[in-house]
Amino acid sequence: MIDLFGCDSVQYDESKKRMQILDQTLLPEKESLITVTEENVLKDAIKLLKVRGAPAIGIAAAIGVAVILDKFPAKTNTGLIDEFERLSKELISLRPTAVNLRNSMVRLRTALIDHSFGYNVKELKSLLLSEALKIKEEDIEANIKMAHFALTLLNSGDTILTYCNAGHLAVSRYGTALSPIYLAKEKGIDIKVYVCETRPLLQGARLTAYELKKAGVDFTLICDNMVAHLMSQGKIDAVITGCDRIATNGDTANKIGTHTVSICALHYNIPHYIIGPSTTIDANCSNGSQITIEERKGTEVTEMWYKKRMAPPDIKVYNPAFDITPGNLISAIITETGIYRFPYKF
Amino acid sequence: MIDLFGCDSVQYDESKKRMQILDQTLLPEKESLITVTEENVLKDAIKLLKVRGAPAIGIAAAIGVAVILDKFPAKTNTGLIDEFERLSKELISLRPTAVNLRNSMVRLRTALIDHSFGYNVKELKSLLLSEALKIKEEDIEANIKMAHFALTLLNSGDTILTYCNAGHLAVSRYGTALSPIYLAKEKGIDIKVYVCETRPLLQGARLTAYELKKAGVDFTLICDNMVAHLMSQGKIDAVITGCDRIATNGDTANKIGTHTVSICALHYNIPHYIIGPSTTIDANCSNGSQITIEERKGTEVTEMWYKKRMAPPDIKVYNPAFDITPGNLISAIITETGIYRFPYKF
Repeated sequence: MIDLFGCDSVQYDESKKRMQILDQTLLPEKESLITVTEENVLKDAIKLLKVRGAPAIGIAAAIGVAVILDKFPAKTNTGLIDEFERLSKELISLRPTAVNLRNSMVRLRTALIDHSFGYNVKELKSLLLSEALKIKEEDIEANIKMAHFALTLLNSGDTILTYCNAGHLAVSRYGTALSPIYLAKEKGIDIKVYVCETRPLLQGARLTAYELKKAGVDFTLICDNMVAHLMSQGKIDAVITGCDRIATNGDTANKIGTHTVSICALHYNIPHYIIGPSTTIDANCSNGSQITIEERKGTEVTEMWYKKRMAPPDIKVYNPAFDITPGNLISAIITETGIYRFPYKF
Repeated sequence: MIDLFGCDSVQYDESKKRMQILDQTLLPEKESLITVTEENVLKDAIKLLKVRGAPAIGIAAAIGVAVILDKFPAKTNTGLIDEFERLSKELISLRPTAVNLRNSMVRLRTALIDHSFGYNVKELKSLLLSEALKIKEEDIEANIKMAHFALTLLNSGDTILTYCNAGHLAVSRYGTALSPIYLAKEKGIDIKVYVCETRPLLQGARLTAYELKKAGVDFTLICDNMVAHLMSQGKIDAVITGCDRIATNGDTANKIGTHTVSICALHYNIPHYIIGPSTTIDANCSNGSQITIEERKGTEVTEMWYKKRMAPPDIKVYNPAFDITPGNLISAIITETGIYRFPYKF
């Protein structure tokens, strides 16, 4: 396995009973760890995208909740569960689109409720932590399985276009969209990559470029608007992206701009593969119109990162954080359980 | 007519025999005029996009050459023409994609050659200036005609998506792509606009937003990658862009990203109209593959405008400044002579 960082983007520190998160807002300039033992630090990290990527948010929220509640002075199981309910609901509201955060909270809640009559407060707290760490371990195993499935769809010499960051930083170890690229690198298979910078938060330029450079992958950075130009020149063999929530009909929420890329790929007969854990499939959601699209502040578009504001003051800015790619535009959805094609039966 | 600025982006100052250019790299923060009487100032303005927009570059180059050569101490007509040849070739090489710059130089050259036996040096210098000013006057008239043709394609209540800047700043007065929007505003017709920020140089966020705000047009700024999301929600009735060079089969070079938008529009059955003067049609170019695409420095993507570099150091960056939208994807090309549809017979 390639040593990407020596550490994952979300880690539990057993000796000090704390969680540590690699602050993704400071990359690629600075590798800085945030220590999480307090609720406000966790919320801040999730809201401000210090931790991001649908699976990573789910893992950070789960371990974070376990760490925070371990210190909560509950006298009864009910007291602990009530506090869990409050905290988990508030966390879910911070990033409404990705399903993994909600899934993590549902899983912890089920564990708590299932054991609320047999366990005492201390045992419930331990259960929360072990369940949270299990979510992370399962994520790592799932990524390796996805990598192997996805790599069967690629050929040596292929050039992949990827969007946003669905790699090591967004998930665990290999990541999702980047997992076959890392596996190919490990196996000595020649795969080149174009990375879309991914406005406005530049997850491609800052994070994917950082990861791929560390891993020694041959890549080129472009602006998001250059995809059709590259495709028209025959330079792209496949598009691979991650996903934040998948409806049961295959409609997929992912970083804003994914749908634009998917339409261009369709136009040029280039396959668009989506890779993500099966936990990203939302059984309660039959199509994309049921997925809430998070809207973020306009200043992310007009001011963030810049030396000075790059648009006139007092104008309207629309900044949705995600879009929906219709399932029938996606060539295949790859999870740890296999490769699925339209019409999807997950 | 709406008073957009009180002045055009390129102006000749008769009393001081100089050209003045509104420095577009400083917008929207600062309205600053560059005075051009020297060759290096003109080249710098063109190369660094202080003046930009295909027609505006053509006008600035023409007036600029006339102003600079007016001071050139030629003793003979041949001496003046030789100097013109050198300077015009160097200017053309600075921005190879837009045809208007080359057209302006060809027109001035033809005027010089045609009169080289009848006129003396002084008269040739006057001829250069009057021909250059005529290019600008004709551009203004052409824009008004385009505006009227294009407005027949729109309906009250429409929402237009535009890309880059093909307005007042890029051209003269009404601009090209923005001309029907300004004409609609003048006539009290309700047209709303979405403006793509246009990475990496942000001509949409900085320039189109600046113009539309000044003109009191109702608009919203978005990132380039959001176009498919908006279209999927039925929020866009038409896409209107400018053009830098049109091949005789309708293939159109325009700002990088235009082709991405055109494919999304086609997918959602939204018309894509291209507006430009007939001088943008290159009779020597039968299809888009013959158009040279200017490549610019990677630091425009990774560093320009930012507080700090937003990607890891020492990586490959691809930064083409234009792309080619195939003629058959364009719903109509509108020039001052009319509305043309595929298969084009200009």
